Amino acid sequence: MAHIEVPEGVPGIRSLVMFRPETGKPLYELAQVLLRGPSTLSEAERELIAAYVSYRNDCMFCMSSHAAAARCLYGDAKNTVDEVLKDMRHAPVSNKLKALLHIAGKVQILSKEVTPDDIVAARKEGADDREIHDTVLIAAAFCMFNRYVDGLASFTPTDPEVYEAMGERMAKGYVMPAETAY
Amino acid sequence: MAHIEVPEGVPGIRSLVMFRPETGKPLYELAQVLLRGPSTLSEAERELIAAYVSYRNDCMFCMSSHAAAARCLYGDAKNTVDEVLKDMRHAPVSNKLKALLHIAGKVQILSKEVTPDDIVAARKEGADDREIHDTVLIAAAFCMFNRYVDGLASFTPTDPEVYEAMGERMAKGYVMPAETAY
Repeated sequence: MAHIEVPEGVPGIRSLVMFRPETGKPLYELAQVLLRGPSTLSEAERELIAAYVSYRNDCMFCMSSHAAAARCLYGDAKNTVDEVLKDMRHAPVSNKLKALLHIAGKVQILSKEVTPDDIVAARKEGADDREIHDTVLIAAAFCMFNRYVDGLASFTPTDPEVYEAMGERMAKGYVMPAETAY
Repeated sequence: MAHIEVPEGVPGIRSLVMFRPETGKPLYELAQVLLRGPSTLSEAERELIAAYVSYRNDCMFCMSSHAAAARCLYGDAKNTVDEVLKDMRHAPVSNKLKALLHIAGKVQILSKEVTPDDIVAARKEGADDREIHDTVLIAAAFCMFNRYVDGLASFTPTDPEVYEAMGERMAKGYVMPAETAY
Protein backbone atom coordinates (compact mmCIF):
# COMPACT_ATOMS: atom_id res chain seq x y z
CA MET A 1 0.00 0.00 0.00
CA ALA A 2 1.24 3.48 -0.84
CA HIS A 3 2.46 5.69 2.01
CA ILE A 4 -0.13 8.36 1.11
CA GLU A 5 -3.74 8.19 -0.07
CA VAL A 6 -3.63 7.88 -3.87
CA PRO A 7 -6.19 6.40 -6.31
CA GLU A 8 -6.28 2.66 -5.61
CA GLY A 9 -5.03 0.23 -8.27
CA VAL A 10 -3.36 2.95 -10.35
CA PRO A 11 0.27 1.95 -10.82
CA GLY A 12 3.46 3.89 -10.12
CA ILE A 13 3.91 7.51 -11.01
CA ARG A 14 0.41 7.84 -12.52
CA SER A 15 -1.16 7.56 -9.07
CA LEU A 16 1.21 10.22 -7.69
CA VAL A 17 0.54 12.58 -10.57
CA MET A 18 -3.19 12.21 -9.99
CA PHE A 19 -2.61 13.07 -6.32
CA ARG A 20 -0.61 16.20 -7.21
CA PRO A 21 -1.17 17.32 -10.84
CA GLU A 22 0.66 20.64 -10.27
CA THR A 23 4.00 18.81 -9.95
CA GLY A 24 2.90 16.07 -12.36
CA LYS A 25 2.67 18.51 -15.26
CA PRO A 26 6.38 19.49 -15.42
CA LEU A 27 7.38 15.86 -14.68
CA TYR A 28 5.44 14.56 -17.69
CA GLU A 29 6.72 17.44 -19.84
CA LEU A 30 10.29 16.58 -18.89
CA ALA A 31 9.78 12.90 -19.79
CA GLN A 32 8.16 13.84 -23.09
CA VAL A 33 10.93 16.27 -24.18
CA LEU A 34 13.77 13.98 -23.03
CA LEU A 35 12.42 10.65 -24.29
CA ARG A 36 10.20 11.63 -27.25
CA GLY A 37 11.45 15.05 -28.39
CA PRO A 38 13.72 15.53 -31.43
CA SER A 39 17.11 13.86 -30.83
CA THR A 40 19.89 12.06 -32.67
CA LEU A 41 19.50 9.29 -30.07
CA SER A 42 16.59 7.05 -31.07
CA GLU A 43 13.57 6.80 -28.79
CA ALA A 44 14.49 3.13 -28.22
CA GLU A 45 18.02 4.12 -27.11
CA ARG A 46 16.69 6.77 -24.72
CA GLU A 47 14.17 4.35 -23.17
CA LEU A 48 17.01 1.86 -22.78
CA ILE A 49 19.08 4.42 -20.83
CA ALA A 50 16.02 5.02 -18.60
CA ALA A 51 15.50 1.27 -18.04
CA TYR A 52 19.23 0.74 -17.37
CA VAL A 53 19.36 3.43 -14.67
CA SER A 54 16.08 2.22 -13.11
CA TYR A 55 17.48 -1.33 -13.04
CA ARG A 56 20.58 -0.10 -11.22
CA ASN A 57 18.36 1.81 -8.75
CA ASP A 58 16.37 -1.39 -8.20
CA CYS A 59 13.11 0.38 -9.10
CA MET A 60 10.92 -2.47 -10.35
CA PHE A 61 8.11 -0.24 -11.64
CA CYS A 62 10.26 2.13 -13.73
CA MET A 63 12.57 -0.66 -14.90
CA SER A 64 9.72 -2.89 -16.05
CA SER A 65 7.72 -0.14 -17.72
CA HIS A 66 10.62 1.57 -19.52
CA ALA A 67 12.12 -1.78 -20.55
CA ALA A 68 8.69 -2.62 -22.03
CA ALA A 69 8.59 0.72 -23.88
CA ALA A 70 12.13 0.11 -25.18
CA ARG A 71 11.24 -3.42 -26.36
CA CYS A 72 8.24 -2.01 -28.18
CA LEU A 73 10.40 0.66 -29.87
CA TYR A 74 13.22 -1.78 -30.74
CA GLY A 75 10.66 -3.97 -32.57
CA ASP A 76 12.36 -7.02 -34.05
CA ALA A 77 15.54 -6.27 -32.07
CA LYS A 78 13.64 -6.20 -28.78
CA ASN A 79 16.00 -8.76 -27.15
CA THR A 80 18.60 -5.99 -27.12
CA VAL A 81 16.91 -4.56 -24.03
CA ASP A 82 17.32 -7.68 -21.90
CA GLU A 83 20.85 -8.24 -23.15
CA VAL A 84 21.84 -4.72 -22.06
CA LEU A 85 20.24 -5.21 -18.64
CA LYS A 86 22.03 -8.55 -18.25
CA ASP A 87 25.49 -7.57 -19.47
CA MET A 88 25.80 -4.12 -21.03
CA ARG A 89 29.45 -4.53 -22.09
CA HIS A 90 28.72 -7.54 -24.31
CA ALA A 91 25.26 -6.52 -25.56
CA PRO A 92 24.63 -5.99 -29.30
CA VAL A 93 24.53 -2.18 -29.22
CA SER A 94 26.89 0.39 -30.77
CA ASN A 95 30.10 1.42 -29.00
CA LYS A 96 28.65 4.92 -28.80
CA LEU A 97 25.62 3.71 -26.87
CA LYS A 98 27.85 1.63 -24.60
CA ALA A 99 29.96 4.71 -23.80
CA LEU A 100 26.79 6.70 -23.04
CA LEU A 101 25.35 3.89 -20.89
CA HIS A 102 28.66 3.83 -19.02
CA ILE A 103 28.25 7.56 -18.26
CA ALA A 104 24.60 7.00 -17.24
CA GLY A 105 25.73 4.27 -14.85
CA LYS A 106 28.19 6.65 -13.22
CA VAL A 107 25.53 9.37 -12.88
CA GLN A 108 23.35 6.75 -11.15
CA ILE A 109 26.05 6.25 -8.50
CA LEU A 110 26.82 9.95 -8.05
CA SER A 111 27.74 12.44 -10.71
CA LYS A 112 31.24 13.17 -9.46
CA GLU A 113 32.08 9.68 -10.71
CA VAL A 114 31.89 10.97 -14.31
CA THR A 115 35.46 11.75 -15.39
CA PRO A 116 36.82 13.76 -18.34
CA ASP A 117 38.10 10.39 -19.68
CA ASP A 118 34.54 9.02 -19.79
CA ILE A 119 33.51 12.04 -21.87
CA VAL A 120 36.52 11.71 -24.19
CA ALA A 121 35.69 8.02 -24.69
CA ALA A 122 32.08 8.86 -25.64
CA ARG A 123 33.22 11.58 -28.07
CA LYS A 124 35.68 9.16 -29.66
CA GLU A 125 32.71 6.91 -30.48
CA GLY A 126 30.89 9.84 -32.07
CA ALA A 127 28.78 11.24 -29.22
CA ASP A 128 28.24 15.01 -29.39
CA ASP A 129 27.54 17.60 -26.67
CA ARG A 130 23.78 17.30 -26.98
CA GLU A 131 23.86 13.49 -26.71
CA ILE A 132 26.14 13.65 -23.67
CA HIS A 133 23.90 16.31 -22.09
CA ASP A 134 20.73 14.31 -22.69
CA THR A 135 22.28 11.07 -21.40
CA VAL A 136 23.31 12.75 -18.15
CA LEU A 137 19.91 14.39 -17.74
CA ILE A 138 17.97 11.17 -18.54
CA ALA A 139 20.08 9.31 -15.97
CA ALA A 140 19.65 12.09 -13.40
CA ALA A 141 15.90 12.34 -14.07
CA PHE A 142 15.46 8.61 -13.47
CA CYS A 143 17.34 8.92 -10.19
CA MET A 144 14.45 11.27 -9.35
CA PHE A 145 11.57 9.24 -10.86
CA ASN A 146 12.82 6.00 -9.22
CA ARG A 147 13.02 7.65 -5.80
CA TYR A 148 9.65 9.34 -6.22
CA VAL A 149 7.86 6.10 -7.14
CA ASP A 150 9.51 3.94 -4.46
CA GLY A 151 9.77 6.64 -1.77
CA LEU A 152 5.99 6.80 -1.60
CA ALA A 153 5.64 3.02 -2.08
CA SER A 154 3.32 3.47 -5.06
CA PHE A 155 1.58 0.40 -6.52
CA THR A 156 3.99 -1.84 -8.50
CA PRO A 157 2.16 -4.48 -10.59
CA THR A 158 3.86 -7.86 -10.89
CA ASP A 159 2.11 -9.20 -14.02
CA PRO A 160 4.42 -8.85 -17.09
CA GLU A 161 1.38 -8.38 -19.36
CA VAL A 162 0.46 -5.20 -17.51
CA TYR A 163 3.88 -3.77 -18.36
CA GLU A 164 3.64 -4.88 -21.97
CA ALA A 165 0.43 -2.87 -22.41
CA MET A 166 2.01 0.03 -20.49
CA GLY A 167 5.08 -0.04 -22.75
CA GLU A 168 2.90 0.16 -25.85
CA ARG A 169 1.10 3.19 -24.48
CA MET A 170 4.35 4.85 -23.36
CA ALA A 171 5.91 4.29 -26.78
CA LYS A 172 3.31 6.71 -28.15
CA GLY A 173 4.28 9.48 -25.73
CA TYR A 174 3.96 10.80 -22.19
CA VAL A 175 0.58 12.36 -21.56
CA MET A 176 -0.69 13.39 -18.13
CA PRO A 177 -3.38 10.98 -16.93
CA ALA A 178 -6.81 12.58 -16.81
CA GLU A 179 -8.74 12.15 -13.57
CA THR A 180 -10.99 9.66 -15.30
CA ALA A 181 -8.16 7.68 -16.89
CA TYR A 182 -8.09 4.86 -14.38
CA MET B 1 35.61 23.35 -17.11
CA ALA B 2 32.24 21.87 -17.98
CA HIS B 3 32.16 18.60 -19.95
CA ILE B 4 30.12 20.26 -22.74
CA GLU B 5 30.25 23.71 -24.33
CA VAL B 6 28.04 25.96 -22.21
CA PRO B 7 28.13 29.78 -21.76
CA GLU B 8 31.38 30.56 -19.93
CA GLY B 9 31.25 31.94 -16.39
CA VAL B 10 27.54 31.12 -15.92
CA PRO B 11 27.25 29.01 -12.78
CA GLY B 12 25.60 25.63 -12.27
CA ILE B 13 22.23 24.73 -13.70
CA ARG B 14 21.75 28.13 -15.38
CA SER B 15 24.48 27.33 -17.89
CA LEU B 16 22.87 23.94 -18.66
CA VAL B 17 19.43 25.44 -19.08
CA MET B 18 20.85 27.99 -21.52
CA PHE B 19 22.42 25.11 -23.47
CA ARG B 20 19.11 23.21 -23.61
CA PRO B 21 16.09 25.44 -22.86
CA GLU B 22 13.60 22.73 -23.95
CA THR B 23 14.47 20.62 -20.90
CA GLY B 24 15.22 23.69 -18.77
CA LYS B 25 11.61 24.87 -18.94
CA PRO B 26 10.01 21.91 -17.10
CA LEU B 27 12.97 21.82 -14.67
CA TYR B 28 12.42 25.45 -13.66
CA GLU B 29 8.66 24.91 -13.49
CA LEU B 30 9.15 21.94 -11.18
CA ALA B 31 11.43 23.97 -8.88
CA GLN B 32 8.96 26.87 -8.84
CA VAL B 33 5.90 24.70 -8.00
CA LEU B 34 7.74 22.62 -5.39
CA LEU B 35 9.70 25.36 -3.65
CA ARG B 36 7.56 28.49 -4.17
CA GLY B 37 4.03 27.21 -4.85
CA PRO B 38 1.26 27.19 -2.21
CA SER B 39 2.18 24.82 0.64
CA THR B 40 1.77 24.39 4.39
CA LEU B 41 5.57 23.97 4.50
CA SER B 42 7.22 27.39 4.47
CA GLU B 43 9.49 28.37 1.58
CA ALA B 44 12.37 28.43 4.08
CA GLU B 45 11.63 24.86 5.19
CA ARG B 46 11.44 23.63 1.59
CA GLU B 47 14.73 25.29 0.67
CA LEU B 48 16.25 23.71 3.76
CA ILE B 49 15.16 20.23 2.59
CA ALA B 50 16.75 21.00 -0.80
CA ALA B 51 20.00 22.17 0.82
CA TYR B 52 20.07 19.16 3.18
CA VAL B 53 19.74 16.63 0.32
CA SER B 54 22.31 18.52 -1.79
CA TYR B 55 24.71 18.51 1.17
CA ARG B 56 24.31 14.75 1.51
CA ASN B 57 24.92 14.35 -2.24
CA ASP B 58 28.06 16.48 -1.87
CA CYS B 59 26.85 18.91 -4.56
CA MET B 60 28.62 22.12 -3.64
CA PHE B 61 26.73 24.32 -6.12
CA CYS B 62 23.19 23.25 -5.13
CA MET B 63 24.03 23.05 -1.43
CA SER B 64 25.57 26.55 -1.34
CA SER B 65 22.88 28.20 -3.44
CA HIS B 66 19.86 26.61 -1.72
CA ALA B 67 21.39 27.11 1.72
CA ALA B 68 21.79 30.80 0.78
CA ALA B 69 18.15 30.96 -0.36
CA ALA B 70 17.04 29.28 2.88
CA ARG B 71 19.11 31.73 5.01
CA CYS B 72 17.53 34.62 3.16
CA LEU B 73 14.02 33.21 3.77
CA TYR B 74 14.69 32.37 7.44
CA GLY B 75 15.70 36.02 8.01
CA ASP B 76 16.68 36.57 11.65
CA ALA B 77 16.70 32.80 12.24
CA LYS B 78 19.14 32.22 9.39
CA ASN B 79 21.59 30.29 11.61
CA THR B 80 19.00 27.48 11.59
CA VAL B 81 20.26 26.46 8.14
CA ASP B 82 23.84 25.83 9.22
CA GLU B 83 22.73 24.12 12.41
CA VAL B 84 20.61 21.66 10.40
CA LEU B 85 23.48 20.98 8.00
CA LYS B 86 25.85 20.43 10.95
CA ASP B 87 23.61 18.26 13.15
CA MET B 88 19.99 17.92 12.05
CA ARG B 89 18.86 15.96 15.13
CA HIS B 90 19.84 18.73 17.56
CA ALA B 91 19.01 21.74 15.38
CA PRO B 92 16.38 24.30 16.49
CA VAL B 93 13.61 23.16 14.11
CA SER B 94 10.22 21.55 14.83
CA ASN B 95 9.92 17.81 15.40
CA LYS B 96 7.74 17.70 12.28
CA LEU B 97 10.49 19.19 10.13
CA LYS B 98 13.03 16.80 11.69
CA ALA B 99 10.79 13.83 10.79
CA LEU B 100 10.46 15.13 7.22
CA LEU B 101 14.23 15.77 6.93
CA HIS B 102 14.77 12.20 8.15
CA ILE B 103 12.56 10.92 5.28
CA ALA B 104 14.37 13.20 2.80
CA GLY B 105 17.69 11.76 3.98
CA LYS B 106 16.44 8.24 3.30
CA VAL B 107 15.19 9.20 -0.16
CA GLN B 108 18.69 10.58 -0.83
CA ILE B 109 20.20 7.14 -0.13
CA LEU B 110 17.56 5.18 -2.05
CA SER B 111 13.82 5.33 -1.65
CA LYS B 112 13.34 1.77 -0.46
CA GLU B 113 14.98 2.94 2.76
CA VAL B 114 11.78 4.83 3.63
CA THR B 115 9.76 2.58 5.97
CA PRO B 116 6.12 2.74 7.10
CA ASP B 117 7.50 3.61 10.56
CA ASP B 118 9.19 6.72 9.16
CA ILE B 119 5.84 7.81 7.72
CA VAL B 120 3.99 7.07 10.97
CA ALA B 121 6.58 9.07 12.90
CA ALA B 122 6.11 12.08 10.57
CA ARG B 123 2.31 11.86 10.85
CA LYS B 124 2.60 11.73 14.67
CA GLU B 125 4.35 15.10 14.51
CA GLY B 126 1.53 16.52 12.40
CA ALA B 127 2.74 15.96 8.81
CA ASP B 128 -0.07 15.33 6.31
CA ASP B 129 -0.12 13.45 2.98
CA ARG B 130 0.69 16.51 0.93
CA GLU B 131 3.68 17.45 3.11
CA ILE B 132 5.02 13.89 2.97
CA HIS B 133 4.52 13.81 -0.82
CA ASP B 134 6.27 17.12 -1.34
CA THR B 135 9.16 16.19 0.94
CA VAL B 136 9.78 12.97 -1.00
CA LEU B 137 9.54 14.78 -4.35
CA ILE B 138 11.82 17.66 -3.26
CA ALA B 139 14.40 15.11 -2.08
CA ALA B 140 14.04 13.05 -5.27
CA ALA B 141 14.21 16.17 -7.47
CA PHE B 142 17.46 17.27 -5.82
CA CYS B 143 18.92 13.82 -6.43
CA MET B 144 18.32 14.77 -10.08
CA PHE B 145 19.47 18.42 -9.96
CA ASN B 146 22.65 17.49 -8.03
CA ARG B 147 23.55 14.79 -10.57
CA TYR B 148 22.73 17.06 -13.52
CA VAL B 149 24.90 19.90 -12.28
CA ASP B 150 27.88 17.74 -11.25
CA GLY B 151 27.54 15.12 -14.01
CA LEU B 152 28.30 17.79 -16.59
CA ALA B 153 30.88 19.48 -14.33
CA SER B 154 29.13 22.84 -14.60
CA PHE B 155 30.84 25.92 -13.15
CA THR B 156 30.77 25.99 -9.32
CA PRO B 157 31.78 29.39 -7.89
CA THR B 158 33.77 29.32 -4.63
CA ASP B 159 33.12 32.89 -3.42
CA PRO B 160 30.44 32.90 -0.65
CA GLU B 161 29.28 36.38 -1.74
CA VAL B 162 28.28 34.99 -5.13
CA TYR B 163 25.96 32.53 -3.39
CA GLU B 164 24.56 35.21 -1.11
CA ALA B 165 23.44 37.24 -4.12
CA MET B 166 22.18 34.06 -5.80
CA GLY B 167 20.16 33.13 -2.70
CA GLU B 168 18.50 36.56 -2.66
CA ARG B 169 17.48 36.16 -6.29
CA MET B 170 16.28 32.57 -5.78
CA ALA B 171 14.19 33.60 -2.76
CA LYS B 172 12.07 35.65 -5.17
CA GLY B 173 11.34 32.64 -7.40
CA TYR B 174 12.67 30.39 -10.14
CA VAL B 175 12.62 32.06 -13.52
CA MET B 176 14.30 30.65 -16.63
CA PRO B 177 17.43 32.66 -17.47
CA ALA B 178 17.02 34.66 -20.67
CA GLU B 179 19.79 34.30 -23.22
CA THR B 180 21.02 37.76 -22.33
CA ALA B 181 20.91 37.21 -18.56
CA TYR B 182 24.58 36.47 -18.08
